[in-house]
Amino acid sequence: MADTRPRTLLGIIEAVRERGPLVQCITNHVASSLTANVLLAAGAAPAMVDIRGEAAPFAEMADALVVNVGTPHGEQQDAAVQAAQAASVARRPWVLDPVAVGTLPVRTALARRLAELRPSVIRGNASEVLGLAGVSPGGRGVDATDSADTALDAARILLGGGARTVAISGAVDVIVDQDGVSRLTGGHPLLTRVTGAGCALGALVAACCAVTPDTTAAALAASWWFGASAEIAAGRAAGPGSFAVALLDTIASIDQLELTARLRLP
Amino acid sequence: MADTRPRTLLGIIEAVRERGPLVQCITNHVASSLTANVLLAAGAAPAMVDIRGEAAPFAEMADALVVNVGTPHGEQQDAAVQAAQAASVARRPWVLDPVAVGTLPVRTALARRLAELRPSVIRGNASEVLGLAGVSPGGRGVDATDSADTALDAARILLGGGARTVAISGAVDVIVDQDGVSRLTGGHPLLTRVTGAGCALGALVAACCAVTPDTTAAALAASWWFGASAEIAAGRAAGPGSFAVALLDTIASIDQLELTARLRLP
Amino acid sequence: MADTRPRTLLGIIEAVRERGPLVQCITNHVASSLTANVLLAAGAAPAMVDIRGEAAPFAEMADALVVNVGTPHGEQQDAAVQAAQAASVARRPWVLDPVAVGTLPVRTALARRLAELRPSVIRGNASEVLGLAGVSPGGRGVDATDSADTALDAARILLGGGARTVAISGAVDVIVDQDGVSRLTGGHPLLTRVTGAGCALGALVAACCAVTPDTTAAALAASWWFGASAEIAAGRAAGPGSFAVALLDTIASIDQLELTARLRLP
Repeated sequence: MADTRPRTLLGIIEAVRERGPLVQCITNHVASSLTANVLLAAGAAPAMVDIRGEAAPFAEMADALVVNVGTPHGEQQDAAVQAAQAASVARRPWVLDPVAVGTLPVRTALARRLAELRPSVIRGNASEVLGLAGVSPGGRGVDATDSADTALDAARILLGGGARTVAISGAVDVIVDQDGVSRLTGGHPLLTRVTGAGCALGALVAACCAVTPDTTAAALAASWWFGASAEIAAGRAAGPGSFAVALLDTIASIDQLELTARLRLP
Repeated sequence: MADTRPRTLLGIIEAVRERGPLVQCITNHVASSLTANVLLAAGAAPAMVDIRGEAAPFAEMADALVVNVGTPHGEQQDAAVQAAQAASVARRPWVLDPVAVGTLPVRTALARRLAELRPSVIRGNASEVLGLAGVSPGGRGVDATDSADTALDAARILLGGGARTVAISGAVDVIVDQDGVSRLTGGHPLLTRVTGAGCALGALVAACCAVTPDTTAAALAASWWFGASAEIAAGRAAGPGSFAVALLDTIASIDQLELTARLRLP
Repeated sequence: MADTRPRTLLGIIEAVRERGPLVQCITNHVASSLTANVLLAAGAAPAMVDIRGEAAPFAEMADALVVNVGTPHGEQQDAAVQAAQAASVARRPWVLDPVAVGTLPVRTALARRLAELRPSVIRGNASEVLGLAGVSPGGRGVDATDSADTALDAARILLGGGARTVAISGAVDVIVDQDGVSRLTGGHPLLTRVTGAGCALGALVAACCAVTPDTTAAALAASWWFGASAEIAAGRAAGPGSFAVALLDTIASIDQLELTARLRLP
């Protein structure tokens, strides 16, 4: 049973900052820079090791791994599978981010193969979770056109397939595991105007998984940290450009009082 | 005959914001993040689908496509040709951005092959348009060392080869089609200090092409939107870093009055 | 004997701004955008020409080259070796940045092969210099966990292998050549919270090498320029996001007085 008390979640955030977990990222070329910068802002150490011959041995020594299938060219597909296999065997936490999975054939086949390798957390929007589970086509791409709750049954299919936690992003984030469903309200619409914001959240989930075996608490802590930072950042921003800058600043600086003031469990 | 009245161009900008066209981007790894963020700021939905097996089917369902040959590694070359062919057959608008074409052999051959696939718009600086048309070597790379008008004859060669509109970027942007030549003064020198700014403009042209069949009006609307936003952003910037941030903010927020105040048709 | 007088270093910085050297970058997909933007802020002209068939001919005409092995997928490995060979034969300055070299097998083999091609400057943190020289494993990745001086013997091994200068980044930067050791204190801890900051410094070293044959003076000038800009930027920043923005602004604007006020030769 996941421990989702605020005190526990705050402890996870603090542990990421103190321990600086090494997070291997195999991700798309659009989001890679923001992803690394979000991890650095959080106090983690990103390492973009995504080539054949290096991805697997690195996954054995990294504290966590995130695999994002946003632009999976040939070599990265191999690296993704090899790293996920290595992480799974070495019992390292790893997060699968099934970007735009559903109708696009290469990434959908790849993500389904990856989903069999017992990811600690699968994080996506509703259309991606639906697409990965094969319940419906994944919409017209990366848009989150459906509310997170529409993907609840799909999430349970993915849990049955070996994932420990499924985190569905939306206006309300829904985090599902074998024991139940947690919901978290937060974030800001400007997050949808910054490329790679969801991808970066996936990496932050991996960082949180590196400091606790409770994958559901890790997903909740990451969503809370990211969403509360987004709310504060939006208040300081004049548009999507300054919002992205303020988001990084805030992820680094947000404290327990600011986090607690923005915790909304609906 | 293109309708280049300000009212029409404002209508195109408004339509991008309202309809949020899905724009497929096959672009270089340096510009991909800024390109996606410019599209998001404009209200469009970018999708970086650039691998074999996905590029072509996605091009059939996207509202527009931009192909940029800035870093065309092997797999992306195939994806670019397949996507452009699919867009051409499906009569979807697509934009070719011939980055640094002229002397570099791989991209020059690739861009010439792409130019035969009836692009809606070819957008480049004068040296790139010259290089693509084979009129002169493309200078020393991505620099726009020549004024846009020096590439007028080259642009007409490309129109003869199947392009509907050729947009030549420079201190004065020159947009050419079978019916004539339009010119637009705008932008700011700081645009040359931000990597991928021209590439992002190419993607914005594609977004505008998604909402009108008038490719010349689309190219003018995008250049106006981008250039006027750059002028405002420069006034708020302390250098190239804060300029890029303000550019994204302004693309998202600029209104009809601000646009109209910065329209200069020489 | 390197001329490391402040007046000489200021002259190098001025020459980069005036001449705008064309710097070819073969670098990782995480750092490519920041790298290009740092070069543009410095007044140089970046060109990300990193594919087979183009990398070598471009290296013959570029003013300088930087090869960074941060995400060396298959095609980029070939391009890196071909470009370095071409630069070496054409006696063009080139900089090797051995990111995370040491334990990761593909990049370590690649970087050692590159190190034999007589790089003008090898720039890395202590663990990377140690890893490249084979003196010790390269730590847990890109972290600079060791002080620069721990890599002095390793740097001398690399000089014996053909490098003209080895620049070891750290809290104190240590620059080593056949004639001696120079040290420079500067920079700011926020540099470790921005992905690709070290990679961008490597590219700035290449830009400085393009305007002087004195590779040690070039490495010192670049470190001074970058470090002093970081100090100023940190004073204007609210966190790592706004720091990266201010860093670009400051690299573009910093003048001789501001530089001189921040020169600390320990």
